Amino acid sequence: MKTPVTEMLSIEYPIFAFSHCRDVVAAVTNAGGFGVLGAVAHTPEELETDLTWIEEQTHGRPYGVDLLMPKKYAGADKGGAQRTELRTMIPDGHRAFLEGLLERYDVPPLPPAPRSGDAPKRAGLQVDGKSMAPLIDVAFRHDIRLLASALGAPPPWLVEQAHRRGVVVAALAGRVKHALAQVEAGVDIVIAQGTEAGGHTGEISTMVLVPQVVDAVAPVPVLAAGGIANGRQMAASLALGAAGVWCGSVWLTTHEAETSQAVRARMLAANSEDTTRTRSFTGKPCRVLRSEWTDAWEAPDAPAPLPMPLQSMLSDRPRRRVEAISERPGSRAAELLSPFIGQVVGQMNTVRPARRVVLDMVEELADAWQGVDDALSAD
Amino acid sequence: MKTPVTEMLSIEYPIFAFSHCRDVVAAVTNAGGFGVLGAVAHTPEELETDLTWIEEQTHGRPYGVDLLMPKKYAGADKGGAQRTELRTMIPDGHRAFLEGLLERYDVPPLPPAPRSGDAPKRAGLQVDGKSMAPLIDVAFRHDIRLLASALGAPPPWLVEQAHRRGVVVAALAGRVKHALAQVEAGVDIVIAQGTEAGGHTGEISTMVLVPQVVDAVAPVPVLAAGGIANGRQMAASLALGAAGVWCGSVWLTTHEAETSQAVRARMLAANSEDTTRTRSFTGKPCRVLRSEWTDAWEAPDAPAPLPMPLQSMLSDRPRRRVEAISERPGSRAAELLSPFIGQVVGQMNTVRPARRVVLDMVEELADAWQGVDDALSAD
Repeated sequence: MKTPVTEMLSIEYPIFAFSHCRDVVAAVTNAGGFGVLGAVAHTPEELETDLTWIEEQTHGRPYGVDLLMPKKYAGADKGGAQRTELRTMIPDGHRAFLEGLLERYDVPPLPPAPRSGDAPKRAGLQVDGKSMAPLIDVAFRHDIRLLASALGAPPPWLVEQAHRRGVVVAALAGRVKHALAQVEAGVDIVIAQGTEAGGHTGEISTMVLVPQVVDAVAPVPVLAAGGIANGRQMAASLALGAAGVWCGSVWLTTHEAETSQAVRARMLAANSEDTTRTRSFTGKPCRVLRSEWTDAWEAPDAPAPLPMPLQSMLSDRPRRRVEAISERPGSRAAELLSPFIGQVVGQMNTVRPARRVVLDMVEELADAWQGVDDALSAD
Repeated sequence: MKTPVTEMLSIEYPIFAFSHCRDVVAAVTNAGGFGVLGAVAHTPEELETDLTWIEEQTHGRPYGVDLLMPKKYAGADKGGAQRTELRTMIPDGHRAFLEGLLERYDVPPLPPAPRSGDAPKRAGLQVDGKSMAPLIDVAFRHDIRLLASALGAPPPWLVEQAHRRGVVVAALAGRVKHALAQVEAGVDIVIAQGTEAGGHTGEISTMVLVPQVVDAVAPVPVLAAGGIANGRQMAASLALGAAGVWCGSVWLTTHEAETSQAVRARMLAANSEDTTRTRSFTGKPCRVLRSEWTDAWEAPDAPAPLPMPLQSMLSDRPRRRVEAISERPGSRAAELLSPFIGQVVGQMNTVRPARRVVLDMVEELADAWQGVDDALSAD
């Protein structure tokens, strides 16, 4: 296949895999697609380890890294307030509400924090430039071919550094005006992400958003994101004018994914109507699998979610408590699990290797195309 | 072009135009598509007049009628309660809230009601089988080729009557399980409608919904609806497995549309993020252009919208007051206008004849497909 992004990144198929799991990233890159490691919750040491591992597996094939850099966040005006200082901005009522919820589902506190030196497996959501800088340094020391950024245009210094190193910069946009701002900031690829996507997402659907973004930013290539997990949806994306597809959810039930058994089982069973957009995890609307957690935050007695990064600071540790306990037999904590996932969860009914997902998409794409070709050529 | 629906209905292009305006219906049918008159707010006399007119214009070319037949509505258990009886179920607080809103925007009462015998131009939303029966009788006396139904599976007697007359039955579905229920009820064509659509709509996007419905109801043909207003979106729909497209919004800014100047101007200026799903008009979630009306009903002090048909009974007359006054120079009533429209409103920036919209879609479809063909055939 040949589109502006297969040319730009020397890949066989314009299928981009966003995943927090290095195994998925390597498998998709090796299958002829392009793996992108979601590294926002990595420590610099973890990122170093993962990128080294990916490069060992992929032997020079191209891959990328995704970080999260919102322009606005609470405390930004203070030039990056300390976490301890930010913590004082979380109302007691919010903490009490969340503790009450965890108690109702018998979720105990986490075991005592590890001694200093024993870093936690995940560092939690880092959203300020200061926390991101060491991760960016690690990424640039490796042979990444693409750096992706969500939530706002990447800062000029980052685009400049990337371009100096020959690294392509991609950024997500949920509205036409955001796409224009991304291009203004020097982005090389715009990822037009529809509301059906998992995680942080806007309100406009992929079908409506993609053609408008394609027209607005031409000749900058656009990837379609949100609602894409098979070859028919990939064919549709190309028909909308996209140069490729950016998929996240579909990898979560692959063999390689680090998804826990409890979460995987819920994903495999879920329908497309079982997701919801909630501000209860990060403060910004995120599409997740609906659960007792999201229902509780929608209830009339629930406090309004806090702005970024306060809501994450409030919910990250409780969320880890839920995850830690949810695998125990008989635990009710699983009812509180709300993994980030898109509406395509309704299509995710089998467990496949990530490589198979890529090859299935390519095959289905050809079939879908043949079907349309037959319709159009008949007269 | 040749798809299961072009064959079934003897049409050139599988482009279906849902419109309340008979001029649009006739123009689309004459352009080689398939016009469907939305007749839910017609009186039987109006429907008689409109269908006669359409047949005079279209000289035997196929067209259809759309009615609205929800299975459940308040009062249904009483076997069709009288409107006066239903009126007593509307809380005073709801009336006061709406009157307060109209007062703030200087919307006066309507002039005195016409004498009996002078039927109003529009009969208002009729949602019970009893009100629909005379409309169905009129439709069946004419040479309609398709009867479409929204909000629930059509009742068995209706499907049977239609099939006896050789009339194809189509029905909207926003979830896979609704599509399966439609097919179970004997529907010949399923219209899979994504959340981006205007009017009553579910939560799943077209990109995600269509392939799932196609697989679930095969070999029953599926039309894609929601987010489709140009040839790229039509190409995408066919790639998703649809046999054609069902479009509503795009006709509202055509030459032929009866859209008022104030509403048309707002549509032409709006972006895709300017719509919202509200229950404030009919009691069921409807996508409309956001306005001071919808914002007021979202406010913390607003009462919860009532179930069908009470919310319509509450809001229909105030809505007509707003429409009647909104054309006056200097009136603030236009700020309360919330026409039913989908997210494609952001693409609707020019006024074209309906025939031109059809032909543009066909041309863009060919171009879009050539683009995909080029990408796939390069190696």
